[in-house]
Amino acid sequence: MTGIGIDIGGTNTKLLVADEKGNVVSVSRFPTEAEKGPEDFVKRLSSAVAKIKKENNVSPLAIGIGAAGDADPETGVLRYAPNLKWRNVPLTGPISEATGLPCVMENDANMAAWGAYVMELGRKPCNALVLTMGTGIGSGIIINGSLYHGATGTAGEAGHLTLEQGGRLCNCGRRGCLEAYCGSVGIMRRAAEAIPDQEAFIKKYNPGGIFDPYTLSKAYEAGDSAAIKLWHDTGRYLGEGLANLILLFNPHYVVLTGGVSKSRDKFLPAMKEVFKGQPISTPFEKLEIRASDNPELGSIGSALFGLEQL
Amino acid sequence: MTGIGIDIGGTNTKLLVADEKGNVVSVSRFPTEAEKGPEDFVKRLSSAVAKIKKENNVSPLAIGIGAAGDADPETGVLRYAPNLKWRNVPLTGPISEATGLPCVMENDANMAAWGAYVMELGRKPCNALVLTMGTGIGSGIIINGSLYHGATGTAGEAGHLTLEQGGRLCNCGRRGCLEAYCGSVGIMRRAAEAIPDQEAFIKKYNPGGIFDPYTLSKAYEAGDSAAIKLWHDTGRYLGEGLANLILLFNPHYVVLTGGVSKSRDKFLPAMKEVFKGQPISTPFEKLEIRASDNPELGSIGSALFGLEQL
Repeated sequence: MTGIGIDIGGTNTKLLVADEKGNVVSVSRFPTEAEKGPEDFVKRLSSAVAKIKKENNVSPLAIGIGAAGDADPETGVLRYAPNLKWRNVPLTGPISEATGLPCVMENDANMAAWGAYVMELGRKPCNALVLTMGTGIGSGIIINGSLYHGATGTAGEAGHLTLEQGGRLCNCGRRGCLEAYCGSVGIMRRAAEAIPDQEAFIKKYNPGGIFDPYTLSKAYEAGDSAAIKLWHDTGRYLGEGLANLILLFNPHYVVLTGGVSKSRDKFLPAMKEVFKGQPISTPFEKLEIRASDNPELGSIGSALFGLEQL
Repeated sequence: MTGIGIDIGGTNTKLLVADEKGNVVSVSRFPTEAEKGPEDFVKRLSSAVAKIKKENNVSPLAIGIGAAGDADPETGVLRYAPNLKWRNVPLTGPISEATGLPCVMENDANMAAWGAYVMELGRKPCNALVLTMGTGIGSGIIINGSLYHGATGTAGEAGHLTLEQGGRLCNCGRRGCLEAYCGSVGIMRRAAEAIPDQEAFIKKYNPGGIFDPYTLSKAYEAGDSAAIKLWHDTGRYLGEGLANLILLFNPHYVVLTGGVSKSRDKFLPAMKEVFKGQPISTPFEKLEIRASDNPELGSIGSALFGLEQL
């Protein structure tokens, strides 16, 4: 039994075929070309699905879409996708019609959460908060073993919890969001302020690289004091933000995923320090922190969540 | 069909008998005398239950306890009750044994949330956040029509979400909690700073009264500029805190209860202004804000939640 997970990126659309255990069967891509409009996109997507079936000799049973934006899981309408500049586009209906396969859509962080729930937590009935730490920060919530949507499918905007009133400007337009401190863009903005000569910094710690969290991690490992402070602060900010989430949600698990989470050995100690200082201690005592380095977690989650609806 | 809702206060323990619709049959009290210890308390509680049954000619089928503190709904252990100075006291087991009735226990805000869910929202399958605005701020979460406990029964500590890093000192020991700004104690601390001559203020707006939110409301109604600003700020703080909760939970309803919520016509406009300015607008557009002025909501909720377990 296989399903297709679809990730509609600003440049390319990725189709991943996975079996019900999350094993990846194939990955392929075609140019999204969002400017041609949703109808044209659905046609090309349908052709891509047909091609995958033939080339891999598979018969996927369902499609799951992880949308970067505001997706309505009930109606299958993509309310807003900033990377595609689409608004209020009915998507699952036309895709289902064109491909003959049932199709579901969720926010991409929700799909990553489902992937983490199946792959990392083994579908244990539990409450879990999954944080996707990439350019920005997203989150998905598992409650009693089910993906939690909220009233409009927008639950889990953890990246936009206010950490500092009037703080750093976030991509969303508000100030002080968790994402503005702990997404990779936010981290590197803080780093740019602390490290004036970035060229020298790159040359010293990651020759040929760029000014990014990876270089910052290399610098940390070499004992650079600015890098150590930056990762420490990242842990402290993340700890303050997560503490709020934990006081509210009281999850069994927090699962960290995404590029930034690869540097977790550098920021987790400061994060756990924040947890230790909490006066309401019960929800922190039983909490287990996990991580997933699976780069395809979101797409696998989409494929699995599609199959889940059968 | 009736149930008993029990509220173990620092001074008195209240027993409320309600039917399955939440109609109150009787209310009685006995001195808690927590210093005599839990065993003695359970004996006296059991006698009080027997007395109620006889005096009101009712046969309650279940008991629900709303505990002010850290209660474990799974084991029935009261992990910590600051007002009783009890730690790790098994409560539902001994009470059930002594009274012969099934007994459940929840955090008091959770019980108020259940009361609001049944009485205000008519048990509609929905996601709701219930805020109890009293001395402090508590909250209970309804997800898909069920009370949400989290991993350790401590979910919904909305009063202790950090609103301002390093902000006002909260009762819990942390700084900047929502409760430190919008609980009645927090509101009156801000009021004391803004209104130096409190005696004159009381004399002017609520002769014979005390310096409390009610007097502040009377002053607001009389057009006092300090009072107007204080309620406006309360709404703004509450709006900022609730915005975080709504971005995370995306509930269908927010229900406000408790003494402070009686002044809602004075702080709701500023709260709604904060909501209007949210860049991620979907979860705010469909949200309905309700209020309950039922002073027995918590105890009724306890009685109803006890019956729910049958």
